[in-house]
Amino acid sequence: MSIALIIPDRKLDAVVTALQQQLPDVTIEVWPEISQPDAVEFAVVWKQPAGAVASLPNLKALQSFGAGVDSILSDLTLPASLPLARIVDPHLTASMLEYLDTVLNYYRLRFDEFGTNQQQQLWKPRSPRKIRHLTVLGLGELGSAAARHFAGLGYAVSGWSGRLHQIDGVQCFAGDHQFAEAVAEADLLICLLPLTGATENLLNEARLAQLKTGAILVNVARGAIVDDEALLCALQTGKLAAACLDVFRVEPLPVEHPFWTTPGILLTPHISAVTNADTAVAQIAENYRRVQAGLPLLNQVDRTRGY
Amino acid sequence: MSIALIIPDRKLDAVVTALQQQLPDVTIEVWPEISQPDAVEFAVVWKQPAGAVASLPNLKALQSFGAGVDSILSDLTLPASLPLARIVDPHLTASMLEYLDTVLNYYRLRFDEFGTNQQQQLWKPRSPRKIRHLTVLGLGELGSAAARHFAGLGYAVSGWSGRLHQIDGVQCFAGDHQFAEAVAEADLLICLLPLTGATENLLNEARLAQLKTGAILVNVARGAIVDDEALLCALQTGKLAAACLDVFRVEPLPVEHPFWTTPGILLTPHISAVTNADTAVAQIAENYRRVQAGLPLLNQVDRTRGY
Repeated sequence: MSIALIIPDRKLDAVVTALQQQLPDVTIEVWPEISQPDAVEFAVVWKQPAGAVASLPNLKALQSFGAGVDSILSDLTLPASLPLARIVDPHLTASMLEYLDTVLNYYRLRFDEFGTNQQQQLWKPRSPRKIRHLTVLGLGELGSAAARHFAGLGYAVSGWSGRLHQIDGVQCFAGDHQFAEAVAEADLLICLLPLTGATENLLNEARLAQLKTGAILVNVARGAIVDDEALLCALQTGKLAAACLDVFRVEPLPVEHPFWTTPGILLTPHISAVTNADTAVAQIAENYRRVQAGLPLLNQVDRTRGY
Repeated sequence: MSIALIIPDRKLDAVVTALQQQLPDVTIEVWPEISQPDAVEFAVVWKQPAGAVASLPNLKALQSFGAGVDSILSDLTLPASLPLARIVDPHLTASMLEYLDTVLNYYRLRFDEFGTNQQQQLWKPRSPRKIRHLTVLGLGELGSAAARHFAGLGYAVSGWSGRLHQIDGVQCFAGDHQFAEAVAEADLLICLLPLTGATENLLNEARLAQLKTGAILVNVARGAIVDDEALLCALQTGKLAAACLDVFRVEPLPVEHPFWTTPGILLTPHISAVTNADTAVAQIAENYRRVQAGLPLLNQVDRTRGY
């Protein structure tokens, strides 16, 4: 009985050490050097190469190393019946809210505009931007926390998601037919949707056209939810006043991608919510114990919904 | 009996209307068109030209239109015995704290670094900057509010001022001999001192040398408190990691000034705390009534101390 970590391109020494402290009797194997594939019953995965999971014949469950699972489910060789859990990290939520607060205030105080003015030696004091209405797309763990947080700060908040939610103080909408209504008043649009077949390229030309002129888009979910060309076009025409992008269709964002240099884009390298290793290790260990005891996984993903 | 507004280069229509609602029986005159100088008993002043106040022979009191009074006291023709009050605006404090929160998080989340990287198409994720210790220079209305605010958020906060203060949760220092101790641990230094003879060029080469290497300076007080050359030098040598400047020795900052283009400077055009006109009008009206009733002014300035 062992656990395999299938997490390419990441230093895992600290994770292995912490897991071994929590589960002293369990062997931890690190892909690609799995000495006994038959013994692996539980795998922790993140952006795994196709076939890596399928090569472990006795797996009982999979654990995502982060909150999102799109990079795991995109592996077409993934055995269909394996249960999959994800990390739900309260630190992750706090770190996301801090990022969103910072971005909101950055735009409210016009740091974007003053930054451009600084480059042109232009002194142009202006009072804060009026940002009163926010729309949060996606009302999962992070989305509903963000909607509640900003409603608590006094913003008018609407939320939109695949299925209808109820959140105190937040006007909730669901489904394609309510998208236009959900975003109609938004000064700032926060994308926290999961990436699924239904949300890929959701923010295309037609949907961006439904925003208020001069709105600001913040994408902290997944790059592929936004149609890159449509976003560039919306910035060039002034439909969008600005966009803050922390996630991209391909990461690292390729050097030649126009997002790097298009005016109005604030670009951060996927830092808005990084899984805290201690929290992740505790949830991995707990789910491993649950599998051994025949109990359901914590934070199990509905694989047909994709989140 | 009338009130004169001596506030050059500013649209005053809304202020005049609001003052007349509060004081319907009082004539409001707007400099430079004062029809009856002899009748003026109360003047509201901000960056007034030398001689403008002295030309009103029957003044009983002066009211600054903002929180600072350095631009008023620098007028050498100002009658020595005139009492002077300033605006103490709770909105001003809220607006200052919002600015400081935004700047702190901007640096914590490395938006400065990611902005530079974006210009070079460089993808370099990094975890947040460790900002744990703040020093607030100046513990007046705004400084003590800032010190309390950040101590309440869990930062280690020290404060430094001319005279020793006591603030719960804040380690307070005073006087030249305690400056080095006050700033020794600061990851971020917030300047909220009044500009007086004692604070002009206070942040010179010698005092900046007492900071921790890699500290960040935020000046939201007055530009002349910082020695421009010493600041440029501290940024060039890496003594300071960054500086956020909202105030300048000369405003607007002249086009040729090196602050515009020196790497590591975040420059905003004096927007960190703008007096709310409604609050100002209420305090002006109240102080006018107090002068008429022979009562002491609200928020009177000690003219020998200069604040």
